[in-house]
Amino acid sequence: MSQKKWVYLFKEVDEAEKAVGGDWEGVRALLGGKGANLAEMTRIGVPVPPGFTITTEACNAYLAAGNQFPEDMWEQVLAAMKAVEQETGKKFGDPTNPLLVSCRSGAKFSMPGMMDTVLNIGLTDATAEGMVRLTEDERFVYDSYRRLVQMFGSVVLGISDEAFEDPLDEYKKEKGVKNDTDLTASDWKTLTEKFKEVVRKHIGFDFPQDPYDQLRLATEAVFKSWNGRRARDYRNAAGIAHDLGTAVNIVTMVFGNMGWDSGTGVAFTRDPATGERKLYGDYLLNAQGEDVVAGIRNTEPITNLINELPDAYQEFIEICERLERHYRDMQDVEFTIERGKLWMLQTRSGKRTAKAIVKIAVDMAQEGLISKEEALMRVTPDNVDTLLHPQFDFNAKIKASEEGRLLAKGVNASPGAAVGQVYFDADTAEMMAKEHNQDVIMVRPFTKPDDVHGMLAARGILTSEGGATSHAAVVARQFGVPCIVGASDIRIDLEKRLMEVNGLLIKEGEFVSVDGSTGEVFQGQIPTISPTLEEQTDLLILLEWADEVASTPGIRKAPEGWPKTGLQVWANADYPADARRARSYGAKGIGLCRTEHMFFEQERLPSVQRMILAKSSEERTAALNDLLPHQRADFEGLFEAMDGYPVIIRLIDPPLHEFLPGERELLEEVIEMRVKGITEGLAEKEYLLEQVEAMHESNPMMGLRGIRLSIMMPEIVEMQVRAIFEAAANATLKGIHAKPEVMIPLTGHVNELKVIQPRLEEIAREVMAEKGVEFPYKFGTMIEIPRAALTAAEIAGIAEFFSFGTNDLTQMTFGYSRDDAERNFLLKYVEEGILPKNPFQTIDRDGVGRLMSIAVNDGREARVDLEVGICGEHGGDPSSIEFCHTIGQNYVSCSPFRVPVARLSAAQAALKYRDK
Amino acid sequence: MSQKKWVYLFKEVDEAEKAVGGDWEGVRALLGGKGANLAEMTRIGVPVPPGFTITTEACNAYLAAGNQFPEDMWEQVLAAMKAVEQETGKKFGDPTNPLLVSCRSGAKFSMPGMMDTVLNIGLTDATAEGMVRLTEDERFVYDSYRRLVQMFGSVVLGISDEAFEDPLDEYKKEKGVKNDTDLTASDWKTLTEKFKEVVRKHIGFDFPQDPYDQLRLATEAVFKSWNGRRARDYRNAAGIAHDLGTAVNIVTMVFGNMGWDSGTGVAFTRDPATGERKLYGDYLLNAQGEDVVAGIRNTEPITNLINELPDAYQEFIEICERLERHYRDMQDVEFTIERGKLWMLQTRSGKRTAKAIVKIAVDMAQEGLISKEEALMRVTPDNVDTLLHPQFDFNAKIKASEEGRLLAKGVNASPGAAVGQVYFDADTAEMMAKEHNQDVIMVRPFTKPDDVHGMLAARGILTSEGGATSHAAVVARQFGVPCIVGASDIRIDLEKRLMEVNGLLIKEGEFVSVDGSTGEVFQGQIPTISPTLEEQTDLLILLEWADEVASTPGIRKAPEGWPKTGLQVWANADYPADARRARSYGAKGIGLCRTEHMFFEQERLPSVQRMILAKSSEERTAALNDLLPHQRADFEGLFEAMDGYPVIIRLIDPPLHEFLPGERELLEEVIEMRVKGITEGLAEKEYLLEQVEAMHESNPMMGLRGIRLSIMMPEIVEMQVRAIFEAAANATLKGIHAKPEVMIPLTGHVNELKVIQPRLEEIAREVMAEKGVEFPYKFGTMIEIPRAALTAAEIAGIAEFFSFGTNDLTQMTFGYSRDDAERNFLLKYVEEGILPKNPFQTIDRDGVGRLMSIAVNDGREARVDLEVGICGEHGGDPSSIEFCHTIGQNYVSCSPFRVPVARLSAAQAALKYRDK
Repeated sequence: MSQKKWVYLFKEVDEAEKAVGGDWEGVRALLGGKGANLAEMTRIGVPVPPGFTITTEACNAYLAAGNQFPEDMWEQVLAAMKAVEQETGKKFGDPTNPLLVSCRSGAKFSMPGMMDTVLNIGLTDATAEGMVRLTEDERFVYDSYRRLVQMFGSVVLGISDEAFEDPLDEYKKEKGVKNDTDLTASDWKTLTEKFKEVVRKHIGFDFPQDPYDQLRLATEAVFKSWNGRRARDYRNAAGIAHDLGTAVNIVTMVFGNMGWDSGTGVAFTRDPATGERKLYGDYLLNAQGEDVVAGIRNTEPITNLINELPDAYQEFIEICERLERHYRDMQDVEFTIERGKLWMLQTRSGKRTAKAIVKIAVDMAQEGLISKEEALMRVTPDNVDTLLHPQFDFNAKIKASEEGRLLAKGVNASPGAAVGQVYFDADTAEMMAKEHNQDVIMVRPFTKPDDVHGMLAARGILTSEGGATSHAAVVARQFGVPCIVGASDIRIDLEKRLMEVNGLLIKEGEFVSVDGSTGEVFQGQIPTISPTLEEQTDLLILLEWADEVASTPGIRKAPEGWPKTGLQVWANADYPADARRARSYGAKGIGLCRTEHMFFEQERLPSVQRMILAKSSEERTAALNDLLPHQRADFEGLFEAMDGYPVIIRLIDPPLHEFLPGERELLEEVIEMRVKGITEGLAEKEYLLEQVEAMHESNPMMGLRGIRLSIMMPEIVEMQVRAIFEAAANATLKGIHAKPEVMIPLTGHVNELKVIQPRLEEIAREVMAEKGVEFPYKFGTMIEIPRAALTAAEIAGIAEFFSFGTNDLTQMTFGYSRDDAERNFLLKYVEEGILPKNPFQTIDRDGVGRLMSIAVNDGREARVDLEVGICGEHGGDPSSIEFCHTIGQNYVSCSPFRVPVARLSAAQAALKYRDK
Repeated sequence: MSQKKWVYLFKEVDEAEKAVGGDWEGVRALLGGKGANLAEMTRIGVPVPPGFTITTEACNAYLAAGNQFPEDMWEQVLAAMKAVEQETGKKFGDPTNPLLVSCRSGAKFSMPGMMDTVLNIGLTDATAEGMVRLTEDERFVYDSYRRLVQMFGSVVLGISDEAFEDPLDEYKKEKGVKNDTDLTASDWKTLTEKFKEVVRKHIGFDFPQDPYDQLRLATEAVFKSWNGRRARDYRNAAGIAHDLGTAVNIVTMVFGNMGWDSGTGVAFTRDPATGERKLYGDYLLNAQGEDVVAGIRNTEPITNLINELPDAYQEFIEICERLERHYRDMQDVEFTIERGKLWMLQTRSGKRTAKAIVKIAVDMAQEGLISKEEALMRVTPDNVDTLLHPQFDFNAKIKASEEGRLLAKGVNASPGAAVGQVYFDADTAEMMAKEHNQDVIMVRPFTKPDDVHGMLAARGILTSEGGATSHAAVVARQFGVPCIVGASDIRIDLEKRLMEVNGLLIKEGEFVSVDGSTGEVFQGQIPTISPTLEEQTDLLILLEWADEVASTPGIRKAPEGWPKTGLQVWANADYPADARRARSYGAKGIGLCRTEHMFFEQERLPSVQRMILAKSSEERTAALNDLLPHQRADFEGLFEAMDGYPVIIRLIDPPLHEFLPGERELLEEVIEMRVKGITEGLAEKEYLLEQVEAMHESNPMMGLRGIRLSIMMPEIVEMQVRAIFEAAANATLKGIHAKPEVMIPLTGHVNELKVIQPRLEEIAREVMAEKGVEFPYKFGTMIEIPRAALTAAEIAGIAEFFSFGTNDLTQMTFGYSRDDAERNFLLKYVEEGILPKNPFQTIDRDGVGRLMSIAVNDGREARVDLEVGICGEHGGDPSSIEFCHTIGQNYVSCSPFRVPVARLSAAQAALKYRDK
């Protein structure tokens, strides 16, 4: 049997590839990310300083053997050094022409927790003198030598940084100099000796003068660092396996500070901020990489290099293009020019802004470098989201934090940045916004449905209570208003009209800045930048591609009769304006119109309250007749906006007490009137209180609402269905393709549907006969009660479509009240990893998802063409969208502002599961 | 092909049995219940008047053909009549010796909605004269004849009863007589003519003088009555299929009024009230069946017959014994003696009281007439329940209703009868009971945990709000206190200390009677009767048999590792006294001890509140240390009571605010103090209010409680586990076999258990080490959150047992808040059949049950010996117990008072599914 190969020269990459069976991931696993990239650059002819990689397998073998190099490894290292010597014409430890190398760790995945780099290995007292002769730059050589001693001491030998910093500071004090740059060649020479003394003192032996000892010890240190505490912690946190091991890269040192024909720099192959296709970076002549980073001298823009070293620049440009073509992505590269000769030291995919991510992906697809599918997979849904909301200027935010203006952190409930003056109630907020044209931040302990007019008028919303799916959060996301909820450090005093955070008072009318993307609240104003979708041509192109992919027949493998394309994206919209926005954002239908929002409008609420408090059936009918024209007009506008697309309208869902004043307010008023002996209006208030108390429920979430309310009081939904069908008929008569779908909420037992649905279908037919028109329509139900999912086969016998109400379904499946849970324990659960994610943000696949999957399967058993969607908050969450795809849904519906995000997510899900 | 046989003589029962393949149910379907029984009696040699049955198939064929007799049917009837003539020696329509018959409908199931009987068919003007000659009793003959005309007219021809009653009344007025008995032979003869005139006038033809016309028309009328409106309605209500058809029985008339050697009577073969083995019934000599029923003459006890007609009586006794042996059940028989000859006209299983049901079943098994298994199947769980609760004297209740003392009907939440004086708060109720030795009925709008002391002191509980699983209901059932909840007609005025029902006022201290079995509330006192289990030797024997059956290995078919016996019955008990009662009722373990009930006791609640309101960890620990000895003592008592049996103790479950005063009370106090300017004690109250408000939850049912609370505040459960294990150790040291099982409530995600359980197990080991003892123990969890059921495989990886908390599981699976649902919509749902049953009383198998089944299957996949039980309210419900058996649970746990019911149910389930 041949000896195991532990060491690969960079130019032996083909062999490495063969050893792992031709798989590039395997090469990365064997040689580490850095080693694999250096080898790959070598293979494609990019000039890389000669060197080699000691494999991760060697590391694992070393650790497994109790810190013993595996057999033959060191011999292979020595052989590789010989090969490098041969290639460079230099010799390791040879004072006349010494070879210096760096030793760098390099695992499969980048790991900040591990030992990084030791430079200048090979410098000894003897070779240093040789270098001085060669470079004629004694200061450079001894600076390099003392760096080696220092790095080796701290990184390899584990001596504290202070042990080296302290003598350096002392020496400078003695010399009366302030900066390192003021130190001379002899100073560094002296310090090198002092540093060697530090090593001796701490370790008990001399800094090794045999370069091979340096190399061996550095290699062992890298190996051992794999099991260091920081590395283990990092791997635990990042979910990286502990058995991968790290590779060690030994690379010939090249120096950019060997004169004005030398230099060093870093560059991106495209602009990482905008994505523009142009080189972007800096360089310095006669300098080392550290100098570029340290900012001691001002760097030059990369394009200027053409004037100074035109040949090297030309070669660099060509190499950059080659690397982009080869890696099919924008590269972040490091280079050094040593005496006119260009060396590439690193290449990797470059980090970039969301804007650049989109532009580069689209451009590269259009350049033919990558496919449209690859372009789609390179952009994350979060990138899209970022592009659609106003953002605070990054640096301004940093500055504000440094100035102590960060007041609090809450739940980032609705993304985007908002700046405005605080007001503590909906009426004032609305008035200041509408009449005084102010930018308003509405601040409340929590919000209720009758606060909505203030919330809509505000630029941003801030509450001290509630979680990511509290009323404030849901409404804010729905209308794209930046919102932070549950900022529990803030104490709001509604009477004094101020809020207090850690002793700081903010009075009504003062400015705050609210970052709904991060949950941060700042005092004062922070500048924002805000793009619109229409301006973002690259994003528009990308989303077109997403729609193409998702609408490809056959892209989804599915049983007979099930959807074969990807998910459609619909939107939740209550008003025609929302519907128009949703459509402009690419929505292909309305998945949820909440009719009760219409009930809260100022001119309607009195009729609604009259209807609820009616003492006779006639009174109730009269009040409902007042409401009907309003509802009809709303629906007509929706059908017009969505001409040709389905519009799902949900019948009244909330419990009736939500439309009445709060019990507590009323109670306080009544008690006060009684105690003070005020009789005027008391009886009326007492009657109202009595009614509200009669409607009180211990757990309203599980109470008299939805279809239960409709069974007890069918007049409301009868009016609503009449309004829907009259509106659809009117629209049809105007030539609009109206496609109403009536959705019944909160079904838990098929018999509930059997009681209500035929009655409503009868009204639908009646209206169509009255108007003399026909149009397609459906009746269906929300699946938001666990029992509905469990008995989906029966329910699909009546319902023509299902729409998952995953907010309520999550509440009931977990038994979490979303109004309280986040505040009380849920956030802690997520923080401590008891729950992997907040299930109100991302569908819990094991629990809630299992119910959904049961519902789709059983439902389609009973009705193979059952239309299945989701209209809960999760409809805009990428992971949840992917799950909806896998269980065979037809569409997802989300807030209009999330539609672009959902379109990308739908396409990505389709691509990811194309062959599964 | 031979002709289809439509008609079977009673003596042709073997042929009928062959025709349906030997199945007795088939015979009943073909001949109807009555026909089958007459035929069967004939077969076993019991004297039945000769006759025959026209089959249900003939009926169906008749109806299917548009009211046409099927081919050959009438010919078969004629042939059967000939056979009957031959047997009786009489001739149909022959004036010299006329045969008279009755025509009776008889479907497979008894159906009051159908045409019943026409007697005396065969009487015509001519045969009547012949009968007069034969009987020498003209009055009897013409009374019989006019009855035929009248019955035939109304039943067969559909003439209204009034059409006959009016001329009769007129005639009596003319004659100046009051009673039918005052009419003479010639009066009846005249009336017969008048009745024939009525027929002619209404129908347009004469009353048929051909007896075969009478027979044919009567038969057709029976057939048609199958599709009559009343019959259809009845079948719809009773769930009987519409395609069964009815048979027609033609039976020779026999007469008990042919002299003093004739008679008629009804009897039960055993006492239907007590079950005693002795004949029970009445007879009259020289009388017809109708006379016995009408009560014109006083009947004689059946045993007296021996003195009057000893031969007939001897034969009757023998026949009764034969029928009991044959049918293997107590029989309800009718007989007629015609001139010394005994004829049996009917036999069927006799209705009887719960007490008799049990005694007869046990006696018959001991007599060897039936097997123990059959005895077990003959008693319903409701029978057992009835025997265990005090009952109102039935007649006294009827009388009270007639006197208008029935005040209201509510939900029958906890069975049993209670009489007492009403008190409107727990403190007064307790005081009046304890200090004044009164029988107390505690009346509240609804109850809360701090009302428990009053509820326990009361004989009965009545609330105007809440449903079958409201706090009042659950506590009442737990402690066997009769209880009615949701009696919404009752208006309680707590200030005036009275209640009002429909204008009637009942003041504090007045008496009411509460029937928790029916939900009825009566004014005043109604006498009760109340047996104990110990007294009921028959029931004790039956329950012993039940346990034998349920503990038979192999009686349950199950996968490897699953339980092979039937269900064990455990009990829910919080206190040692309950545990002792449970054990005396046959419980084999404690399935639920609710530790928090102990927290509500007067001397403990202050410590609990101090613990909750603690401002520091030390304060909290101090308060918990005060509680520990109390808890330990409670548990020690439990282990002693259950020596050798497992005791499942649930760690704290309810939200903490339940231990504090109510928010509303506090709020009212604080507002009042503020408005009135009272400052003394205000700050303290305000602090308490602030704390209570901070704990306020919108949906407390889904809030911070159970394991969630334990994760946020582990000190409480740590104390509890220490108390449990110290108690178990102490008990063990006393020689008691303590088997603690620690149950963690409200788990929804396995990670919750992973956080808490190991920490508690550590404490358990610590205590055992401290005490130097070892005993078996388990840690497990409730399955009451839908997600827990859906992820049971993961959870069973940690939990060693599951106990279904079906109250909460039902709440969350349906999304019904049990505090509100029954009042708001659930009772209406059940009334209108939207839900087949109240899911809080009987497990909803399709929804909740599906989750339970998933949990058992997935749980045992992960841990094959997983112990699975149920501790929700459903654990005492027979249908739910059956379901628990079918899904493979180990035990059910219910309130001590339900244990006997559950033992029977468990045995019945085991028997029912033995071969499935």
